[in-house]
Amino acid sequence: RINGDRLWDSLMEMAKIGPGVAGGNNRQTVTDEDAEGRRLFQKWCEEAGLTMGVDQMGTMFMRREGTDPDALPVYVGSHLDTQPTGGKFDGVLGVLAGLEIVRTLNDLNIKTKHPIVVTNWTNEEGTRFAPAMLASGVFAGIHELDWAYEREDAEGLKFGEELERIGWKGDEEVGARKMKAFFELHIEQGPILEAEGKDIGVVTHGQGLSWTQVTITGKESHTGSTPMPMRKNAGLGMARVLELVDEIAWSHKPHAVGAAGHIDVYPNSRNVIPGKVVFTVDFRSPDLAVITDMEERLKKGAKEICDEMGLGIEFEKVGGFDPVEFDKDCVKAVRDAAERLGYSHRDLISGAGHDACWINRVAPTAMVMCPCVDGLSHNEAEKIFPEWARAGADVLFHAVVETAEI
Amino acid sequence: RINGDRLWDSLMEMAKIGPGVAGGNNRQTVTDEDAEGRRLFQKWCEEAGLTMGVDQMGTMFMRREGTDPDALPVYVGSHLDTQPTGGKFDGVLGVLAGLEIVRTLNDLNIKTKHPIVVTNWTNEEGTRFAPAMLASGVFAGIHELDWAYEREDAEGLKFGEELERIGWKGDEEVGARKMKAFFELHIEQGPILEAEGKDIGVVTHGQGLSWTQVTITGKESHTGSTPMPMRKNAGLGMARVLELVDEIAWSHKPHAVGAAGHIDVYPNSRNVIPGKVVFTVDFRSPDLAVITDMEERLKKGAKEICDEMGLGIEFEKVGGFDPVEFDKDCVKAVRDAAERLGYSHRDLISGAGHDACWINRVAPTAMVMCPCVDGLSHNEAEKIFPEWARAGADVLFHAVVETAEI
Ligand SMILES: NC(=O)NCCC(=O)O
Ligand SMILES: NC(=O)NCCC(=O)O
Repeated sequence: RINGDRLWDSLMEMAKIGPGVAGGNNRQTVTDEDAEGRRLFQKWCEEAGLTMGVDQMGTMFMRREGTDPDALPVYVGSHLDTQPTGGKFDGVLGVLAGLEIVRTLNDLNIKTKHPIVVTNWTNEEGTRFAPAMLASGVFAGIHELDWAYEREDAEGLKFGEELERIGWKGDEEVGARKMKAFFELHIEQGPILEAEGKDIGVVTHGQGLSWTQVTITGKESHTGSTPMPMRKNAGLGMARVLELVDEIAWSHKPHAVGAAGHIDVYPNSRNVIPGKVVFTVDFRSPDLAVITDMEERLKKGAKEICDEMGLGIEFEKVGGFDPVEFDKDCVKAVRDAAERLGYSHRDLISGAGHDACWINRVAPTAMVMCPCVDGLSHNEAEKIFPEWARAGADVLFHAVVETAEI
Repeated sequence: RINGDRLWDSLMEMAKIGPGVAGGNNRQTVTDEDAEGRRLFQKWCEEAGLTMGVDQMGTMFMRREGTDPDALPVYVGSHLDTQPTGGKFDGVLGVLAGLEIVRTLNDLNIKTKHPIVVTNWTNEEGTRFAPAMLASGVFAGIHELDWAYEREDAEGLKFGEELERIGWKGDEEVGARKMKAFFELHIEQGPILEAEGKDIGVVTHGQGLSWTQVTITGKESHTGSTPMPMRKNAGLGMARVLELVDEIAWSHKPHAVGAAGHIDVYPNSRNVIPGKVVFTVDFRSPDLAVITDMEERLKKGAKEICDEMGLGIEFEKVGGFDPVEFDKDCVKAVRDAAERLGYSHRDLISGAGHDACWINRVAPTAMVMCPCVDGLSHNEAEKIFPEWARAGADVLFHAVVETAEI
């Protein structure tokens, strides 16, 4: 079993970097805070005897040697970046649990046949630079490196330049590493485990995602002196499209979801009818056909709404991945570990996207989940209990060590 | 008659300061660009022999002496500040037409009995610091000076500190001046004059305004892993309230209008259900009872929407003024001037708020309007023709000089 207190202490220590405004964290990708978090993680890893590799996307690979020089490593990890108003555990738990595995192996003086590599993937959250899971996506061959470098944040800063600026652009070719397997521990970010009183989620699938950026164009004009029939109010068009998004998501029960978290209104002045609105619709489902249906209905319906209102509309797909089925053997390793350790568990479909979803394309992959209070995540109030973290890390430990072979 | 070419040249010269991105202007109140525009106006005024007074709200009073030392001055003017994506004429025309009157009187070597004071009111637009017509509102005793100083922009900067920073906080007590009359020339910002082919609008009334800032509180959570029934989506609540605003405005035909130009979503991340949305509803009507009715229906209806969705809602009135009836004698002076000069004209209700609406509380006041292309304003594409500016300035000239007495 791992050392739950040590894991918890490290989580609390990391949470001091990039504090939020309400008890959580704002340690967004490739910011100065991200760089500081990386340095702390590097220090801990080096103290545990790991050696570092950094690839051209800034992903950190911290390696513990195995006994067989030719054996493919087992990878374990997640991400240290957070939402602008994020929690202390989303991503961080998976990285620091990887470190805790290594520390425990050191304590127990256990050598594995296969090396173990603890990984911190760059820009998982996708808030500052869409899409989410950017570095693991390049690693898996989904995105080109140059395309990733060109992603821009709201201020027009480029991902590649920011990565360089914070000093974490490595030399290593992205995706060159071969993995025996990849395991990721993550908080559920949903309500099921807590509601059912389960310690562990054995993640069998990940639902798919589609991010459509919608730009509605109206005509800027005076809110006072423009008669109602002459208005081309892009904000009102958006309101109608947001209703449609909600309707579409509800029409696919029980699993599909849909919302817009990102909305920018131009020129955003109290007495100017909005001339332009840009927002991103997030649709998800475990079923690819449902995602496709939702995308199509959005485009058709939103176009009709805007045509009727004399507004222009454009769509751009800014992120997405298909539903994922994780590797059966890796999933079994997770389920067996939970069983062996006596933790209650159930199979789960991940509602969120994870680096594991992309890595599953290039290596056998599975995920472990632990509950979080009220299923709440992407909120500074995100909360888990030390026992939950320990149970998740224990299961991760057993699954990883079994796969890495003693 | 005034010199239309000189007026136009000055308009084009002023438009070089704080250029926009699409041919218009971004010379928002108490910015460095505002300070630069003020200096140019000051220089022109001093060249025309005017002497400057600046009050504690930064309003500029440029005085041409009259022949009777005891006679109350006739004031004329408008504002030099613009929207973030504003036009070249909204406000500026009224200030520079005031200057043009003085230049013409100088050319013709005419002395008036009453002094003439060309005025540039600070922060008419209300974009950066709500409410609109802030300085004229303090002048008319509607707002306290200290309260005005405390107004904050989106970055949390205070109006008073910004006014000091740009070097235009004067010593003069606000509202101490007494006026024989105030005249303001402004572009219509609406479609009526152009549609009817009229040169001049004789403004008899101004419609009233209500700005209600609405804050809807939901719960930030993950767009992927939060099941639809558990969401508290403040963005969706806003969408429904925006629909309601539109419905309410349409229910009072033909005059009432309603929209939200300002919308801020928090934390504004693609994969976070909005936990908070702040937006400002702008309702207007020439009838006070209609404005009150719209405000009440908004509060009641929006509360119902939010209650049903489990969202919190708060309202704050951040701006407003009652409908205005301008001074009959001043209005007649404008109508007579248009008649005398042979310009086609019609009576108008102003759809927008103007400094004249507040000054009307403390001095006999009237407004002259000229058409603008497609009724378009609060848009960089705002456009008028030199002939339209000249006709408006001619009518203003005659109304002012008649009131100031030769
Ligand atoms: N786990 C997580 O929050 N990932 C961010 C990508 C997503 O939106 O699902
Ligand atoms: N004229 C003008 O655009 N004034 C700004 C105040 C308002 O919104 O009416």
